[in-house]
Parts: sequence; structure tokens; C-alpha cells
Amino acid sequence: MAQEDLFKKLIAHCKEYGFVFPSSEIYDGLAAVYDYGQYGVELKNNIKKYWWDSMVLLHENVVGLDSAIFMHPTTWKASGHVDAFNDPLIDNKDSKKRYRADVLIEDQLAKYEAKIDKEIEKAKKKFGDSFDEAKFRETNPRVLANLEKWKELHERFSKSMNEMDLVDLKQIIIDYKIVCPISGTSNWTDVRQFNLMFATEMGSTADGASKVYLRPETAQGIFVNYLNVQKTGRMKIPFGIAQIGKAFRNEIVARQFIFRMREFEQMEMQYFVRPGSEMEWFEKWKATRMSWHKALGFDDSNYRFHEHEKLAHYANAAVDVEYKFPFGFKEVEGIHSRTNFDLSQHQEFSGKKIQYFDPEINESYVPYVIETSIGVDRMFLQVVSAAYCEEEIEGANGKKDTRVVMKLPPALAPIKLTVMPLVKKDGLPEKARAIIDTLKFEFNCQYDEKDSIGKRYRRQDAIGTPFCITVDHQTVEDNTVTVRYRDTMKQERVAIGELRNIIHDQVSYKNLFEKLG
Amino acid sequence: MAQEDLFKKLIAHCKEYGFVFPSSEIYDGLAAVYDYGQYGVELKNNIKKYWWDSMVLLHENVVGLDSAIFMHPTTWKASGHVDAFNDPLIDNKDSKKRYRADVLIEDQLAKYEAKIDKEIEKAKKKFGDSFDEAKFRETNPRVLANLEKWKELHERFSKSMNEMDLVDLKQIIIDYKIVCPISGTSNWTDVRQFNLMFATEMGSTADGASKVYLRPETAQGIFVNYLNVQKTGRMKIPFGIAQIGKAFRNEIVARQFIFRMREFEQMEMQYFVRPGSEMEWFEKWKATRMSWHKALGFDDSNYRFHEHEKLAHYANAAVDVEYKFPFGFKEVEGIHSRTNFDLSQHQEFSGKKIQYFDPEINESYVPYVIETSIGVDRMFLQVVSAAYCEEEIEGANGKKDTRVVMKLPPALAPIKLTVMPLVKKDGLPEKARAIIDTLKFEFNCQYDEKDSIGKRYRRQDAIGTPFCITVDHQTVEDNTVTVRYRDTMKQERVAIGELRNIIHDQVSYKNLFEKLG
Repeated sequence: MAQEDLFKKLIAHCKEYGFVFPSSEIYDGLAAVYDYGQYGVELKNNIKKYWWDSMVLLHENVVGLDSAIFMHPTTWKASGHVDAFNDPLIDNKDSKKRYRADVLIEDQLAKYEAKIDKEIEKAKKKFGDSFDEAKFRETNPRVLANLEKWKELHERFSKSMNEMDLVDLKQIIIDYKIVCPISGTSNWTDVRQFNLMFATEMGSTADGASKVYLRPETAQGIFVNYLNVQKTGRMKIPFGIAQIGKAFRNEIVARQFIFRMREFEQMEMQYFVRPGSEMEWFEKWKATRMSWHKALGFDDSNYRFHEHEKLAHYANAAVDVEYKFPFGFKEVEGIHSRTNFDLSQHQEFSGKKIQYFDPEINESYVPYVIETSIGVDRMFLQVVSAAYCEEEIEGANGKKDTRVVMKLPPALAPIKLTVMPLVKKDGLPEKARAIIDTLKFEFNCQYDEKDSIGKRYRRQDAIGTPFCITVDHQTVEDNTVTVRYRDTMKQERVAIGELRNIIHDQVSYKNLFEKLG
Repeated sequence: MAQEDLFKKLIAHCKEYGFVFPSSEIYDGLAAVYDYGQYGVELKNNIKKYWWDSMVLLHENVVGLDSAIFMHPTTWKASGHVDAFNDPLIDNKDSKKRYRADVLIEDQLAKYEAKIDKEIEKAKKKFGDSFDEAKFRETNPRVLANLEKWKELHERFSKSMNEMDLVDLKQIIIDYKIVCPISGTSNWTDVRQFNLMFATEMGSTADGASKVYLRPETAQGIFVNYLNVQKTGRMKIPFGIAQIGKAFRNEIVARQFIFRMREFEQMEMQYFVRPGSEMEWFEKWKATRMSWHKALGFDDSNYRFHEHEKLAHYANAAVDVEYKFPFGFKEVEGIHSRTNFDLSQHQEFSGKKIQYFDPEINESYVPYVIETSIGVDRMFLQVVSAAYCEEEIEGANGKKDTRVVMKLPPALAPIKLTVMPLVKKDGLPEKARAIIDTLKFEFNCQYDEKDSIGKRYRRQDAIGTPFCITVDHQTVEDNTVTVRYRDTMKQERVAIGELRNIIHDQVSYKNLFEKLG
């Protein structure tokens, strides 16, 4: 299946089966904002629990925090977000539409790439098996002409972006005759910087309420609480503070479903270390985080590290964990060596001494920081992308059939088991519910009595339920049930009393934790 | 201990022991916003889990949802918040300070009450045991004069508030010579309505970004998703949708620590029922929710129901669960019969048919709704208020001593057990950590080797840890440890292998769930 089709199917599946809905959909949605449905919220909560417990339970020196979305506005001056958290925007005067200048230019680059691909496709069809793509790329004049244009534009664009030369960004748009996709005209305004933070007014005084921001990242909530946590928790360096929470960015171009949203959730851990030891910890956390991803059991070859070529002003090392999404390898998580930039800035702007006295070396210093930062929504998309399968199976009467199955790690599955009476009579529903009553304190259970057993299995496959338990007439006699396993579709007769252990063994997070080493 | 002192001590304790910090404290805080520290976040998460699991795991027909904070702006027109979610505000022209007109008048009422109390205190001191308070209240001329003033003002104020007569609210302030506490003047502006929703601009077009609000309640996120959840989840009425999430209100007067904040978290469940059956379900949920509170095991006499005298425009019944906080009985949770108001409004404003076809009566209708709505932060404050104890105990050398202990229900305690080597040598730290390694997958454990065992016990009492495990020289020989229980302070020698079950039996949520009946 083409990757683009797969992505469309996945989005449709997420809506149809109650994982992700467009926000306020009855009002035709709100751009780049999504709601998590009845199964989505469970999967999301399970992902968060996997992260939280792996950080806080498994590390003696990592503690949690839950700081507010609203923070004192000076926080964002100190962090640099007020001055520098910008995108270069341009408006088309005819359509009144606003665009990111860099994205318009990237789209132009993509057009050259598409032209090259088209030539190659044409030639492939024409020459069939004898087609030598490498040679064609090197010799075909139309390919070469487009490649030349691509290189020229790419070089100029990279230079302008590096220098944030807004005048030249506009000049590129003019020179390359880039037009508005809506109006079709090149009647553009100048390019100007647009801050990505959402602002609001917090009212308390008559002469103007104070302007506060919705935090664009959760990290600063950890930095401003460093002193409080270190002191009240009697933490010794090295130690970490972990936090899960919402952040907000007024993205102009928000694309790819829940991959980039205006409202999103982050799981961040800031690890405070002695200056000079940061590279050692950077390497350690890089390895720890990759293990965390791989412990989920998806195909290892879909993960890779991507080292940043250009470092942010606060960083001295940075790497992404990338996953191969249907739209290509993209960042799921970032591991950053942030130096002492943030704490030093807060020390300067607040006038409070933010230092640690290290008894081992008898010295005070501003700690260095290793950050691990992962988007909950992105991780959710990674998990459903990896779990979504279409399989050919043997259907009724031996005919070929297909099933869609979400092969979610059992610990993350929204529903752990569904109990199904074979028929809606003869006391089977009561028996089924009695089984649920013994298991519901521990596992998220579902009851389903509608349609044929086969149809019920399909519904559970579609939401990733690892166990289907069928209650039949024999159950009433001998207290045994049929367990049907999601991935193998194998069935097994077991005593009701064994169910708890069978399920617990599979769905426990311990299975994942033990792989973390 | 006076209740006011208790409340101050509790706030100080919450900060000192890493439960709740003022937000962005290094920048001197942000009014009415708080951050949860390393123990606070765990307690808060445990409260949320108790609520979520009691709703979603224990009810076959209740499912979860996680809708975004940003919603389509028409949502808030439909719900009535754009037009009617207001407070009456007044500014003092000299101090430039803004006040809620109703609160200024309530403060004036409180002054009369204080005067009466003062007279009574004086008389009590003077007459001692022979003082007859009831008679004094009925006869003392100063008491009667103040009571008369109180009644007169209260009556006029209630009338103005009921009619939202802004002109008369100002006139009351003038007539009663109410002055600004800062400037001391009565140089007031007119009273005007002030919407409590935080607004921000979501930018996407050049001719003005669209104005969106931070949701002032989570309920509407459930209502706009009613159709999606009902259809994709194949839900049959009656059924419920449960949600936990942040909401925001630009409160002018935010008081009492985390009781009323500008950013807060709600746990709401909307239960959709057949019209005409709502009173039956209202009574059922009223009882269910009170059981949930009382299952925590705090003093039953501190809970009561409070029936609303005046119903909101959308409700046909409403009751609060109130708890006796240090500052008096106050609402922790509301149970409301919201009729079909919200769904009907969304049907009208969206043009989408929001109806349920009920196969049992062969009829379509807009469902009626019973809501249970509880503030996470308020519930947190309830729990710490109830758990905080100061006890006289026998200290070292038989001397009297005191301890502060948080008698948290074990399922909610941030740390379940702390393992302490008696000394920092002889292999005891290694042994202690080995015990943690066997338990840390399941329980939040802490390691503590600093100071005397007595001091370590006090620290754990202060954060409410139910079990302290001491590792001594005998442990190395026979694999037994001392378990010390928080509430009784009793100690017991047990085998390491038994620890898991001893702890699990106490900290499991099952203990709470089983009381829910």
C-alpha cells in the first residue's frame, strides 16, 4: 500500500473507531486542533503512564512536577521566547491569506523535485525493465535543468534563513514568481516576524490587565521551579525533574494530522548535572530514550537518530529520535544538552541565586541540563502508525477476507479484554458480566453481545483489544471460557480462574520496563 | 488550633514539603496560579486515577474523552458564555484598582458581622460563665443596630444581584460609603459586566486572526463530541462521558490558596438519559458521588449536601457536595440536572441534528443530561485538609514530642514506601536498594539514608508515606526487615518476600472501589 494512502486510512480509522476526532467537529472543526475519543484517551493515558513510570518509578533521582500553563511573563523574556520565537510571515494582498515565507519557498523546491520525479516515472514506463534510473538522472536534460534550479534556490534560501534576511526572503518569492495558491497573484506584503506564542490578558487592575502567554514549551516550568524542587526534595546532583503538560504554539502551517498541532502535550525531563559531565549524561539519556522506544516491540529499523546540524543558541549537543512515519522519517523526541543557559537567564532576570553547592567538589555552580523532550500526540501518532495493519485472513466458509488490526503493545491497548456471551440468553450475558465484575477493578473491560462472534472479533481487532473472552453454554457447566488472542487469532479454552493471570502477564508495564535495562 | 491558623500551617506545609508552590515563584508568583511540586503531582495524579477508574472502569456504560482546551468559538455562543459569563466590576479612579462590586458589598456585610462578633466577645470576657449569648443577641442595642443594617443591606443587595441591576450595585456602594481599601476614597467608576473567559487570537489570515477562548469549563467539550462518541462507541442511552482537563477563568477575586484559581482542572462526567428519567438518575449519581468521597475514610461528619436555592438557567435540579474546609463548609463537587439545554443549543447553532433514536420506545429525542463536576485542585485541598494532623507523641528519651503527619488514604499517598538502611555501610545501602529494585515497578519508592531513623520517619510522616522499611544488620543475615506503619507508628519484623503483599493490600485502589457498592 502506498504510504500516502496508508496515512489517509489511518486518519479515517482513528475517527471511525473513536481514537481522534477533529476538534468541535459539529462546528466544522478548528484548524490544527484535535480531540481524543473514548479509545484515544485511554491509549494516550497509557502512553503517558509508560513515560511517567519509566522516568519517576525507575529512577531513584528523578521526580515529577506539574507546573501551570500560565507563568509569570518575565519567564518568556528570560527564555528568549518574547524576542526570538518567531516565524517569517508574508500576506497576499489579494486573497488576504497569510503564509510562512519559508514554507512557500519550500513548496517551490518541492515543485522542482516533483518535475524530476515525473520525468523519471515517464521514462520508467517507456523503457520498462531496461531503465537505468541513475544514468537517466545524470544525463536527461530536463532532469538536469530542474536539478540546477533546485540547487540554486536551495543555496540562496538556506543563506537567507540562516541570516533571517527577511528582505531577501521576499525577493526570492518575487524572483521565483511564487504566487498565492488562492488568488494566483504575486501581490505580496513584506515578510515580517510573527511571534508564535498565544497571548491573553489577565485582568486585575484598571489601567490595563497584564499580558500573559500560554506556555510554548513545558521546560521553563521546570527551570523556574528548580530551586523549590531541589530544596524541598533534598535532591542531589545529578537529578531530574519530569513533567507532562500542554503547550501551545500559534503555528501558521500546521499539517499532518496530530503531528503538528496548535495545542499539544509534551513529556519533558530536565536532568541537572555538574558542568563538564554533560556529554556523558547526554550519551546515557540518548541510549535510555532509544531503549524506551524500542521496548514497545515495533520494527527496530523504523527508528534512527538524527544529529542536529545547526544547534539552537542554548545547546551544545542535540539529537532527535526519528521514526519512519507514513510521510517519512520525522522527529518523535529530542535529546538536548542545553548547557546552563536557561538557569543562568532566570538567575539574571529574577535576581535570585540559582546555584547548587556540590559537596563532592566543594564548589557552587549553575547546573548544566540534559533535556529529553517528547510530544505525547506525536508519540500517539507513532504508536498508531506502527500498530495499524491490514491482514488477509481466512473468513467464513474458508473464503479470503481481510481484517484491520491495531497491533498495540498490550500495556498500551485502550481495552484489555472484551467479554462476549455467545448468545443473548440462557444466562450467558449474566455469566459474562459476572466475569467482568471480577476483573474490572484491574483492567479496562468491555462487554459486547451484539452481532456474530466474528464481527465482534473484528471490532476488537480494530481498536487493538488483546483478549476476547467468549462465554458459551459450556461455561455455565464447567466455568471455562474461550480466550481468543488478537495477533495470532488462536483460541484456547481456559478456566475463568486463570484469566486474571493470563491477562496480567501480557498487559503489565513490567514487560516493557524490564527491557529498559 | 484555630481553623485560620490550621489553614496557614497547611499552606506552609504544602510548600515546605513539595506539594504546592506559588507559580513562577522566583518572579514573585502569578496571582491565583499554583504549581504542583514533586509530591503534589503524585497526589494529584492519584486523585485523578481514583476518579477516572471509578467512572470508566467500574461503569460499563461510561467512557472517557480528552477534548482540547481550544474549541470553535461558536461553542461559547451556543453555551451562553459569550453573553452571560460575567462578573460586575468597578474601578477606583484614584488607586486604579479593580474590584468585583458584589465582593465589595459582601465585605461590607462581613464588617457588620464582625462588629456583632466583637460585642459578643467583649461581653463573654466580661460576664464569663454566666454569659447568655442568645439573650445578649436579642437585647444588646449595638448588636441589634448592626443586625438591622446587615438585614437592610442584604435584602437590597440580593435584589440587585438577582436582577443584575448594575446601577443599583453602584448606588449601594455610594450609599454605604464603601471605599477602596487602597486609596481610601469612594471615587468609583460605573459598575460594568466583565466576561470571565480568557481570549486569544489564533492567527491564520491576514485580515484579522480569529478570536478563540480558553474553555471556562470542560463540559462543552463533551457536548460537542456527543455525536462522535455515541456513534463510534455504539453507546446506548443511558451512558456517560467522563473527562479530566484544564479550564480557565479570569477571576478578579481569587482567594483561599488553590480553592479558586484562574487556571484549574476539572473532572466532569456528563450522563445522557431519556427525558423524564433525569430525576431518578440525579438521585442515583448524588448517592454514588457521596459514596466516592466517603470511601476515602475521612470523618463522615465533614461532608454534607447543599441544595441550590437558585438554579442556573439550564438546570432543573442541582446539589453540591460540601466539605468542611478550615474556612468553613464549601463546595467540592456539583451534581446538576442540566436538562437538554446544552445539546439543544448546539443543535441550533451548528445546524446538526443532535438526537438519539431510542429503540425501546421507538422515539428520537435530544437526551437529558446529569452532570457530576468536581475540581481536581479543590479535591486536592480537601484531601490535604482532611489528612493534615499534628499529634503529640513520645519522643527520644520518653520526652513529649509532636509530629506532623499526613494521614492520606494509602492509595493516594505520593510515596508508598521508603527504604532506609540503618547505617550507610556494611552493605546495608546495597541491600536497601536491592529491595527497591524488586518493588519499584509497582510502587513509588524512595530511598533515604540521611540522618537518624527517627528524623527519617518524621520526614515520611510529613509527606504521608504509609510504610517505612528499615534495613539493619539482621537483614543481611536473615532477609527480614522492620516495617513501620505511618498511622499507628507500630513496627513489625517481616520477611522481605512478604513486603509486596503487605504493601499491595493497603495501597490498592480496590480497597476504595469495593466501598463504592
